[in-house]
Amino acid sequence: MATTDSVRVRVFSLNCWGIRYLSKHCHQRYAMIGDMLCKEEHDIVLLQEVWSEKDYLSLKKKLASSHLYSHYFKSGVIGSGLAIFSKHRIHDTFLYRYSLNGYPYMAHHGDWFGGKAVGMAVLSIGSLTAKVYVTHLHAEYCREKDSYLPHRVVQAWELQQFVRHTSAGADVVILGGDLNMHPQDLGNRLLRSYTGLRDSYLETDTFDGCEDGLTLIADNPFISKKELVPFEKGIRIDYILFKGCPQIDIFCDSMSTTKGSVPDQLFPYSDHEALTAELRLESHTPPETGRDKLSKNQDSAAGKVAELVDIVTEARTEVKVGLHCAESMRYTATRTGAMGLALLFLELAIAAVPWLALGAEQPFPRTSFYLLAALCCAILLTTSLLYVFYTMELKSLQGAEDQMRLAVGSLQEKLRGFPVAQPPNVQQKPPEGQEPSAFDPEE
Amino acid sequence: MATTDSVRVRVFSLNCWGIRYLSKHCHQRYAMIGDMLCKEEHDIVLLQEVWSEKDYLSLKKKLASSHLYSHYFKSGVIGSGLAIFSKHRIHDTFLYRYSLNGYPYMAHHGDWFGGKAVGMAVLSIGSLTAKVYVTHLHAEYCREKDSYLPHRVVQAWELQQFVRHTSAGADVVILGGDLNMHPQDLGNRLLRSYTGLRDSYLETDTFDGCEDGLTLIADNPFISKKELVPFEKGIRIDYILFKGCPQIDIFCDSMSTTKGSVPDQLFPYSDHEALTAELRLESHTPPETGRDKLSKNQDSAAGKVAELVDIVTEARTEVKVGLHCAESMRYTATRTGAMGLALLFLELAIAAVPWLALGAEQPFPRTSFYLLAALCCAILLTTSLLYVFYTMELKSLQGAEDQMRLAVGSLQEKLRGFPVAQPPNVQQKPPEGQEPSAFDPEE
Repeated sequence: MATTDSVRVRVFSLNCWGIRYLSKHCHQRYAMIGDMLCKEEHDIVLLQEVWSEKDYLSLKKKLASSHLYSHYFKSGVIGSGLAIFSKHRIHDTFLYRYSLNGYPYMAHHGDWFGGKAVGMAVLSIGSLTAKVYVTHLHAEYCREKDSYLPHRVVQAWELQQFVRHTSAGADVVILGGDLNMHPQDLGNRLLRSYTGLRDSYLETDTFDGCEDGLTLIADNPFISKKELVPFEKGIRIDYILFKGCPQIDIFCDSMSTTKGSVPDQLFPYSDHEALTAELRLESHTPPETGRDKLSKNQDSAAGKVAELVDIVTEARTEVKVGLHCAESMRYTATRTGAMGLALLFLELAIAAVPWLALGAEQPFPRTSFYLLAALCCAILLTTSLLYVFYTMELKSLQGAEDQMRLAVGSLQEKLRGFPVAQPPNVQQKPPEGQEPSAFDPEE
Repeated sequence: MATTDSVRVRVFSLNCWGIRYLSKHCHQRYAMIGDMLCKEEHDIVLLQEVWSEKDYLSLKKKLASSHLYSHYFKSGVIGSGLAIFSKHRIHDTFLYRYSLNGYPYMAHHGDWFGGKAVGMAVLSIGSLTAKVYVTHLHAEYCREKDSYLPHRVVQAWELQQFVRHTSAGADVVILGGDLNMHPQDLGNRLLRSYTGLRDSYLETDTFDGCEDGLTLIADNPFISKKELVPFEKGIRIDYILFKGCPQIDIFCDSMSTTKGSVPDQLFPYSDHEALTAELRLESHTPPETGRDKLSKNQDSAAGKVAELVDIVTEARTEVKVGLHCAESMRYTATRTGAMGLALLFLELAIAAVPWLALGAEQPFPRTSFYLLAALCCAILLTTSLLYVFYTMELKSLQGAEDQMRLAVGSLQEKLRGFPVAQPPNVQQKPPEGQEPSAFDPEE
C-alpha cells in the first residue's frame, strides 16, 4: 500500500433541479452553483438533475481552472442528469442504467424519460484509487400509496450489485446522490448492509446543517409544504456514503448541509439542500486478530449476515408485490386489446353484410365506420405497446427476484457455516489481492 | 492465496438457436443438448439463445444431478437468452443490458426484442473465486453494409468495461458466448486488448474441431450457404476467453468444437458449433522481477498501451459514423413528423373554411377527411416514437464516445509516462490487494 499519512477529500453532492424553463430561476441558480463550486474547490462534486447538457457545459467552462476533470453521463431520452467534477484525474467512467424506472405514460412524473442510472468514475487521489459513484433513484410521489416502490427497491438492489461488483480492489469508495429514500427505507438498508457503505451524516464528528440532516426541507422556498406531509419539517433523502478498504481507514471529520437559503442571495441553490462531507483517509496495517477477537468478529459477522437475509427477504416480498401488479396490468392491457380486436372484427363483419347479401343496405354511416375503425386500431396499437412494456417490466422484476432468491440461498448457507467454537473456513480473512467472499457485508 | 496445485475446469459454450416453433427441430435438439450435457458433466455450461424459459427449466430438470447450480438471465421483451449451468456453487449473479441493441422496427431481425446483455456469475471453484461471463452480441446480417456495426462496437466497449470493472479481485475470469465478431474484428480486438482475456482457440495445446476453429460452418445442415458468402467454409464468431490473476496461472490444455454433425444423430445440436475448453488453473508466486526484466516489461507494456490507443481511436471513429447516421435518421423523422403536422393543419384550415365563410360548401368528402386526418395522426405518432428512440440511440452513442475520448486521453497520458531509462511510477506493480491501474491492459 502506498504510504499516505492522511489525505483529505472534500465531497459535494447536490440535486440541482435543473429542468430548463420549468424549474424556477434555473439559469440564475446554475450561475450561483458555479460560483460557489469555483470558490469552494471541493475535491469531488457530484451533481444530479443536470438535465441539460448546455448547463453542464457552462458549469464545465466556469470550473475549468478549479476542477480540471469532469464527466457528464448520457442515458435515456433526456439524459441521466448525472455529472461529476473533480480536481483529481478521472481515468475511466462507466454507466449502469437501472432496468426499471417508472412508466413512459406517466409523462408528468417524467422519471422514465430521464433514464435513471448510476455513474461510476475511477479517480486517482494521490497514489490511491477511488471509485466514485453518483446516482439518482426514482422519485417517491406519494408515500402512502407508492406505486413505484418495487421499481425503487429493484434500483437499490441493482445499485448495491453495481457498487459491490465494481468496487473490489478500490482503496476508497464514495457514493453521492439523491436516493429518494428515507434513512431507514428498505432500499437504503439493502444498499448499506450489502456494500458496507457508511453514511457520512451518521459518522461525522461535527455537523452543521438542517436538523436531523434533512435535505428536503419545509423552509426551502421552492418546496411546497403539501408535498412533505406527513413530514412537516422535511425528509433526508440525499446522501454521501463512503467506505475504505483493509489498508485504508476513512473518517468523516465534518459534514454540512445548506439550510434552505444562501447568504446574500434571493433564493437557494435548489429545492434540495447541498451536502458537503470532509473525509480523511488514513493508511494503516490491519492488526493481527487474536483468537478472542476473531470469535467476536464471527459473532458480529453472523449477525450481519442474518440481518442481510431479513432485508433481502423483505426486498423480495416488495418485488413480488410489483410482479403481481405488473402481471395484472399486462392482463388488463391484453384484455383491452382483445376487446378492441373483437370490436374491429364485429364492425368489419357488419360492414361486410351488404357485400355478402347483395342489395342489403350499408348499415353504417361512413363517418362512424371510419371513426370506429380508427378507435379500434388506436386501442390495438396502445395495448400492444403497453403489452411489450409490461413484459419488459415483468422480466426485470423476475430477474431481480431470481437474483435475490439466489442471494438469500447463498447467505443462508454462509450462516449455516458459522460454528460456535472453531474458526470456520468462510470466516478466514481472504488473503490480500483476493476479493473477499461475494456476500461479505464488509466487502 | 489458497494452496491449489492444479485445478481443471471444463467449460462449454453453445448458441442453442432456440426459437420455439421457428428454429428447426428445436425440441429434439434441446433433448440432445440435455443428454449430452448430462453425460459430459462440464464444470461450467454457458448457453445463448435459450429464448424460452420453458426450455431452460426442462434443461434444469434434466441437469439437476449433474449441474446443481444454474441461472437464467431475464431481460428485454423476450429475454436475454443467456443461461448458465454449473457444478460449482453460484453465489451471485448480475446482468448488464447493452445500451444499444438494434432497432425495434427491424422486427424480422429481432435482436432488439431479445434485450441483449452480458450475464455474470460469481462461482467458487474450490477455494478460488471465478467470475464467469456469458454474452451474445448483436448479429451481423450483412458484412458489406453492416448498419449495426456501431451498435456492436458499443456493445463490445460496454462488455470490456463491464468485465474489467467487475472482475477485479477474481482469481479466474472466464467469458463464453456468441460475440458475432470475427477474430480480428474491431470489437474483438477492443475486448481482448483492454481486458487481457485470452482466446482458448489460440492458446490451446491440442485442438480437435473445425478447420481454423470455425463455429458457423457451411457443413452444418441448418446453415444456408448464401449467408456465409464470402466466407465459403464458415466463420469463427463463438469464443471461450479466459485469464488468471497474478497468483493464478491459467492454461488451455485442450479445446474442441463439434463439426456440423453429431454421431448417431440426424442433425447437429444447433446452427452454431459447440465449444469445449479444458482449462488448468495453477497457483504460483509471482517471481521477483529483475531490473532487466522490468525494463523489457515496460517496453512491452508501452507497446500494448500504444496499440490500445489505436484500437480505441478506431472504435471512436466507428461510433461517430453511427452518431452521424442516427442524427440523420432523427432529422428525417423530425421532418416527416413536421410534414404530417403541416398536412393536418392544412386539412383543418381547408375544412374550417365553410364555418368561417358561412354558406361556402364543405370542400371535403367526409370519408377522405377522416382518412387523411387518421393518416396524419398515424404519421405524427410514428415519427414521435422514432424521435424518442433515435434520441435514446444518440445519447447512448454519445455516452460511449465520451467514455472513449476520456480513455484515449488517459492512455496517452500513461504512454507519456513511460520513460526509457528509469522505472516509472505507473509501471510499479500495484501492491497486492490493490487494483492495478484502470488501464493496465494486463489487468
